[in-house]
Order: sequence, then C-alpha cells, then structure tokens
Amino acid sequence: MRLNFALAAAAAMIALAGSAAHCSAAPAGAEAFDRSVASADNFEPAIPHPEQDAAVKAKLAQLRDKVGRRPNIVWLVVDDMGYGDPGCYGGGAVIGAATPHIDQLAAGGLKLTSCYAQQTCTPTRSAILTGRLPMRTGLTRPILAGDKITKNPWADEVSLARLLSDAGYSTLLCGKWHVGEEEGMRPHDVGFDEFYGYYPAQKEISQRVDERRYPGLVRDPRRLAAFEGAGPEDHLTHGFKGGRTERLAQIRSIQDMGRADAVLTEFTVEKIKQLAAGDKPFFLEHCFMKVHCDNFRNPDLASLSESKYPYKEAVSEVDMHVGAIVDALDQAGVLENTLIFFTSDNGPQMDAWPDAGYTPFRGAKGTTFEGGVRVPGIASWKGMIQPGRVSNDVFDLMDLFGTALTLAGASTDALPADRYYDFVDQTSFLLHDQGRSNREAAYFWWGSELMACRMHEYKIHVKVVLSQAPHMHIDLSVVNDVGLAPWFFNLHVDPKEEMTVGHRLDPWMATVIGKLKAHAATFKTYPPKQIGL
Amino acid sequence: MRLNFALAAAAAMIALAGSAAHCSAAPAGAEAFDRSVASADNFEPAIPHPEQDAAVKAKLAQLRDKVGRRPNIVWLVVDDMGYGDPGCYGGGAVIGAATPHIDQLAAGGLKLTSCYAQQTCTPTRSAILTGRLPMRTGLTRPILAGDKITKNPWADEVSLARLLSDAGYSTLLCGKWHVGEEEGMRPHDVGFDEFYGYYPAQKEISQRVDERRYPGLVRDPRRLAAFEGAGPEDHLTHGFKGGRTERLAQIRSIQDMGRADAVLTEFTVEKIKQLAAGDKPFFLEHCFMKVHCDNFRNPDLASLSESKYPYKEAVSEVDMHVGAIVDALDQAGVLENTLIFFTSDNGPQMDAWPDAGYTPFRGAKGTTFEGGVRVPGIASWKGMIQPGRVSNDVFDLMDLFGTALTLAGASTDALPADRYYDFVDQTSFLLHDQGRSNREAAYFWWGSELMACRMHEYKIHVKVVLSQAPHMHIDLSVVNDVGLAPWFFNLHVDPKEEMTVGHRLDPWMATVIGKLKAHAATFKTYPPKQIGL
Repeated sequence: MRLNFALAAAAAMIALAGSAAHCSAAPAGAEAFDRSVASADNFEPAIPHPEQDAAVKAKLAQLRDKVGRRPNIVWLVVDDMGYGDPGCYGGGAVIGAATPHIDQLAAGGLKLTSCYAQQTCTPTRSAILTGRLPMRTGLTRPILAGDKITKNPWADEVSLARLLSDAGYSTLLCGKWHVGEEEGMRPHDVGFDEFYGYYPAQKEISQRVDERRYPGLVRDPRRLAAFEGAGPEDHLTHGFKGGRTERLAQIRSIQDMGRADAVLTEFTVEKIKQLAAGDKPFFLEHCFMKVHCDNFRNPDLASLSESKYPYKEAVSEVDMHVGAIVDALDQAGVLENTLIFFTSDNGPQMDAWPDAGYTPFRGAKGTTFEGGVRVPGIASWKGMIQPGRVSNDVFDLMDLFGTALTLAGASTDALPADRYYDFVDQTSFLLHDQGRSNREAAYFWWGSELMACRMHEYKIHVKVVLSQAPHMHIDLSVVNDVGLAPWFFNLHVDPKEEMTVGHRLDPWMATVIGKLKAHAATFKTYPPKQIGL
Repeated sequence: MRLNFALAAAAAMIALAGSAAHCSAAPAGAEAFDRSVASADNFEPAIPHPEQDAAVKAKLAQLRDKVGRRPNIVWLVVDDMGYGDPGCYGGGAVIGAATPHIDQLAAGGLKLTSCYAQQTCTPTRSAILTGRLPMRTGLTRPILAGDKITKNPWADEVSLARLLSDAGYSTLLCGKWHVGEEEGMRPHDVGFDEFYGYYPAQKEISQRVDERRYPGLVRDPRRLAAFEGAGPEDHLTHGFKGGRTERLAQIRSIQDMGRADAVLTEFTVEKIKQLAAGDKPFFLEHCFMKVHCDNFRNPDLASLSESKYPYKEAVSEVDMHVGAIVDALDQAGVLENTLIFFTSDNGPQMDAWPDAGYTPFRGAKGTTFEGGVRVPGIASWKGMIQPGRVSNDVFDLMDLFGTALTLAGASTDALPADRYYDFVDQTSFLLHDQGRSNREAAYFWWGSELMACRMHEYKIHVKVVLSQAPHMHIDLSVVNDVGLAPWFFNLHVDPKEEMTVGHRLDPWMATVIGKLKAHAATFKTYPPKQIGL
C-alpha cells in the first residue's frame, strides 16, 4: 500500500505552500472556504444547511401523509457513458445520437453538472452500494476474468440493498453487476432480494462470439475451450436472496449481445408493475449493459441514431429504454413517490475508439481528470424536484447511499462504527427548490493511489494519470507524481484542466491541500481493507 | 497568393483518394451525399427544399398581411465568445458565469449547434455584411493599428446595410465595427444610416490606459504620444450616412472601458423605441465590445458571475444586455415581427488565459479547428420560430446575408454578377418548424490559405493551424500542410478532431475532397481581390 507516500507528499506540499486554513471563528459576513463540519469521526464532514434540511423533511412528511408509504428509489446506471454523450450535457444530436428521453428527464428534474463517479466500473458500483471509497473496501479496480480475490470484500460490508431490505424495502438489481460473480459476492448474496442480469461487462461476454474483433480467441478452439470453465459467466442469471440461482439464456452471438438491454428493460418494466402493486416500497437498480464496449446494434430495432456507429446506436437505445422505464413508473402510478437517479459509472472508455463516447473534458475512463470522473447525474421526482433545476454543486455518486437511507427512514446509527463512511446525505440538496450541495469536497483515487480533490471550482492533483496516446487512456497510461508543485486547476476558467493556476495565481491551494491531507488521515485512523485484488 | 498550391494539393489528393462521387441520376430511395444544386455560376450551390420554402413563404406572407410591414432584423454579435461559454451550449454556471437570458433566447427559438464563423474578427464581420468570403473581398485578417490598406475593399462591395437601406430599411450599427476606420470604410460610409460605437476591439483601446498590463506603453510618455496620432480611435463615435461623424467620449481608464457595453446597450434600447415607432422596418446590428480581451468589470454593476474573473463578469454582463435588448423589442411591441440572431464572431481568444473563454472543441480563435470557427448561433422570432428547436445542420454566418435579403423582399438579381457569393438563403431552414439547412458545406480559410471543409458530420483539413503551446493559439501557432493524406474527421465520433478516420475508415473522403476542389475552382473563375492587407 502506497498510501503513506501520498500522505508524505501532501504534508510536504503543505510545507511548500504555506499553512492550511484554520477554523477559528469567522467575522460577520465571512464564510469559511471549507464550510463542512464533522458529525462524527467516521463520517465525511458535511456542509450544514439546517433550514434546507427542515424544509425538505417537512416536504417528505407531507408526501408520506398523502401516499402512506415511503418513497421508491430507482437508479438508472449506464456503463461507461461519457459526460458529453446526452443531449442535455452538450452531446446528443450534435454528436449523432439524440437522447430525447434522458433530456426530458433532466428538463423535468435536477441536472447535476458536477456529479462524480470513480474512474472505473467496479469501484463506482461498489462505492454507491457501500457508501465507502473503493480504497476502504478493497474493490479498487475492475474485477476481470481470472482474478482471484483472497478475501470476499462483501463479507463484512453492509450494502445499501441489505439496509433497505432490513428496513422493509423490496430490492432488485437488474442488469450488469460486475462486483464479483463468486458465491458470497453476487447481488442476491449481498442484500438484493433478486438479481436478473449479467455479472461481467459486455466485452467480457461478447469476445467469445465476436470473430471479427477477437479472431485469436474465437477461431482457436483450445483457447475458446479454456474460457468455458474459467471465463466470466456468459449466461443471463436470475438469482434470489438465499442463494437460488438460475442460469438462463447464453449469449451465443453478437446479435444476442445486441439484444441484451432490451431483455433487461422488458424485465424491469414488468417488475415495476409487480413492485408498484406490492405492499412494500422498492429499491430498483437498473444497470444497462450498454454503452460499455463492445457495442452491437440490437438487430430487432430500426436504426436509432443519425451517426449509425454501434456506440451511437447504443446511446440512443439506452435512451429509449430510459423512456420505457420512466413510462412504466408513470403507468404504475408511482412517479410521484419515486426518486429516479440517472447516471454513468465513469467517463467514456476511449480505447474502443472510433466506437466510443464523448466527454468535453480532459482524460477518460481510467484517469482522475474530469473526463474520467465527471458523469451525467439527473435526479427526477415528479412533484418533489422542481423541473428545470440545474446545479453545479459538487455531488459524489456515493451520496446516493446516504440519501437512500434517509428516504427509507433508516438511521445511520445502524451503520458499523468501526469504519469510515464517505457518503454525504444529499436529500435536502436534491429535493429543495433552491437546494445547495451538502458536500464540500470530492476525492479521487486510482487503485491505491490518492490522486486528486475537487473543492468549489478548484481541483488539485498530487498524482496524474497521463496517456501516451490519444484516446488510449487506459491501455497506454502511466501514473505520475507531479513535479515541484501539485497541479492546481480552476475549473471555471479551465474546465479542460490544461493550465494550472497554481500557488502564484490563486490563494486557495494550501487550503485545498489541507482538505486532501485531512482525507488521507482518515486512512490512518481507519486502515483500508486488503482483499488481494 | 498561394491558392494554386491548395488547388494542386486538392487535385493530388483526389488522385490519391480515388475518383470523386459523380452526379448521375440516383436510384429510388437514394440521396446524393452532396445534395446541393447550383442556381447560377456565381452562387454557392444550395440544397433544394421546395416544400419547406413554399411553407415558409406562405407563413411570411401571412405575417406580412397581419403586421403590414416587412420584418425587422436584429443581430447580436459578441466578440470572441466561445461556443462553450453560454449555459445552453454546456457552459454558463458550469464554468462560473450563468447566462440566463441567452439560454432563454435559445429555449424560445432555434439553437444551432453547427453554426460557423470565420476564425477571426474582421473576416467574420465583413463576410456577414457582404455575403462573401474574406478571401474574395480581401479582408482576410483582423485590421490592426498601423495597417495601411492600399485599396478600400468596400469601394466595390455592396454591403447588406446598403441593400437593406435601398430596400427601405432603417439601418443601424451599434458597437464594435473593426472593418476599417478610415473614410470610406466606416459603417456610415458603407450603407448604414447610423453608427454608434467603436472602430477597434477593446484591447486596442484599453492598452493605452491599462498600466498593469501594458506598463511599457502606458508609463513611457514618448510611446504613448505616438499612439495619439497613429493609434486606433479611442473615442466613442457617432456617424451618419453622408459622412457626418461626431467624436464623443474618450476611453480614459479601464473603468471607462468596463462601462462601454452598458453605454452601447443603453443607446440600442433607446433607439429600438424610435425605430419601432418609425414608419420603416429596421436592420440593427448590435456588436458587443465584450468579451474580447482585455475585459474589465463594469464598476457600476454588482458582481454578476460566480467566478468573478473579468472575462466571466463580461459574459454575464453581455447576457444581461441581451436580456435588455430583447426586452426593449418586446416592450416596443415588435418581437413578433423581428428575427433576432445571436452569435459570436469566432472562437475564444486563448492568449488572454486565464481570463478567457471556453470551447469544448480543439483549437481556438485563429485556427480552423472547430474551436476556432464553431460558434453559438441562436435564431429567435416569437410566433415564427418554434420554441425549443435545436439543429445540428450546417449554418454559416454568411447565410445571414441572404436570409436578410429574403426577409426584406430584396431580390438577389440586384447583386453584381461579376463576383461569387458564398451565402445560402436560410430563411426556410430558420422558420420552418422542421426546417433543414439549405447549406451543404462550410469552407474554412486562414488568410489566403484554403484549410478545411465541413460536410455532413465530416470535416477535412488540407492545412492545419497548430499551436506550439497550450492556449496560445494565435501567438504561438504555425500553418502546416498535412502529410500524405488530408486530416479527415468524423465529428460525430470525434467532435474534438483528435483522430482521423481517414480514407481507410470512411467511404466519403474522396467526395468531400471533390467538394473542396469545386470550391477552390470558384476562385479561378472569380479571382480574389487584393487590398494590400
């Protein structure tokens, strides 16, 4: 573990940059640059907004009185969609794939423009279900075929699915999982009542049947046979809490792969009818297989995009499914009692280019530049979130964990006190008409390296992932220590992180370094878990 | 003139790439990649849309019957605003300067996402008033202090202001001109009834009073004195057709400079009342001084932006003025008879960084990459343009020339037949609820170099402007011939122009080269003008 390195580097930089801001009483009219306050040693400090909190609490109580049950929670998670892919984030028809349903979801709710994920898939997916950074849980990188994990990270993690289940929710994960397919690590092992989907990412499955892209595997019977026992699961899986697991249809062709999301959406749409008619509130996490590489057109659908590239068809197909799921919620009469959150698990994976996504920012999936971690984030709740809201306040996808607990009326007192929680409860930010974020900073890790921190319009990098080739951000990237000074960007004047404002052009570098150092210190008090990944 | 070079290069590339597409009769269901048809030798070929044209003609006739006079035309031209600066183009609050009025204008009308300018200021401003490329008129680069032009380019150009004036319009230019300040080249010499504004860009004026940025000029009395006779005009100018020219207040401080746009907007707002009450339709071109470097906060205004950088304050101030001008049109009761077009003259000038604009694209002002030439373009006309329209079809700001002629009922027959016109009449595109662009291609020049062409989602570069330093696109740029093959980008899968799809990955390169070659050939038939700039 190279964490001490990062800590030492941060300390050295503090010395270089001058003393960190201290927290003495501020004069009238002043507002501390770091507005956050810790509620407990093991919780991420949050910005207090007592009036906002109270107003939203009252609003929720009023809805509860009217509806008579706690709200449903629906997460729509796309795989590897870039910040710039949806129309409402500057892409859409501009880049050849219109996204009318996603745009409509944003127009009818809150569009977040500083919403952060981890820089890859497994880290994000585990973080939003544990409320904890991958560095704490051990799930620091995507699980790939052949990985042998020495200790099941889920064994002592308390997932949101379990917490909501215990609190009386029906819980369902439909679609891609990618946080372990061995017993004990499957969705229905870690708290979900039901799982209907695939364990790995599309490419892990389709490589077995895509002769044009992987001739060295598909046309070599010995290598192909080796995948039968050891490769990632290529069957649709239906799992049930308690362990029962059904292996359904196998993906036998790229056409099958192209149809996967339609099958998943059909299941979710059907399930919404049942869940809405049931006697419990529900938590539904729908994870699309698309738009992760490799993308294959659904052969049952007419062309959906102007561009026609399979990635673009996938974007427009996901958009269509988003529309279908929202429609299903509407027709089931639960839109007014359901928080829908639409997002992506990380930035676009560019080594699939030209069949890849778009971010206007620097970097891509696998880097901690904005292109890797800033993702679409849309919160929609008919009657509870004011249509047309847009906020550039910092939001971390882990905040979905704490927000879901609050909505379910579950207390954080039930969370184990022996570990650090990184989420911030954003219920009042999302639901108040003039809501401001309760999060002061977002932190960015790459494996076990502490890389960067966003605070207000600033981002500091103490390490950077640099690619040695355009687009090939994962495959040709290297992790670098920064030179004499950290890279300090002002995202207002430099959203592409090209020119540092550094210490000379800005008064806040030392303060942000102080924040980063405080974050690093939580790992001394609460040492990270080792799972052998 | 190095045009023959470009022609030879294009011809060579045709040979390299294979034969260009030919225009024989297409089978049923087919659509030619190049859909344009020439109406005359000296007009840019346009895509025929007879039904769209007829529907819009009827719609205009109906309005004319109702209102009883021809429509007003209002252009709002910002200086150096980046494509990404307004909120509705992905910037706004995300980069620290909200633009609610510009966003509202877009939401209430048509937002163009492939709207093109020339890559610098004088070229764009002259092109939209002549309907002709700078390479034809001789105005190929920004006019700077000390430039001696050997032949007045306006002497034989027929400006839109003159044509509309002759057609019975009141014509006014308020704000920045920058297409010549000598007699014969001033707005009121070339067709405008009235001019109220400044000849040069902000920086040319403010450098005389900005001690912190230009100490070598401001603190050296001899150098400063040299500017008094030879420098660009630093007084507000009020000019009238016939030649009368009043020198009004001088810019004596950076505070004066910061107030300039408020003064100009106040004039325009007052003038709108008079024009609307007059007995003629009007053509008003309002050209903001901001956000061209160097930007100074208006000291009479409270802070407008979250970022606080002067550039950001300028963006938000321009936005406020846009709101005031639209309000003035509304209060004068002419919104339903006025086409408003909001745009910028080129991409952001980045050598002013960190106080500079934002484009998500590659390059900046001074390059022919998208960052230099793709600009915001919003058409709004209450009752005539459907609110919420967005189009990614190709639009060139020169098209405003032809569109204005059509709206004024002026025939293109009046245009001299001895020269080539590059505009396309876009009236039906802008006004039809499902309007499609009548333009098939946009061409990009850099001085006298033919650089690039956009057609459908493709862009080809036969020369490229590359910067040798981040952000310093003008000051540290060089013009390069491309290597073995032209740079051929698909802007759908690669909006940042980073990786060429080239001849191997795409079937259309030869066709687009053919289009470029046909464009170059118009300069053989209609030789360009030399003005000594």
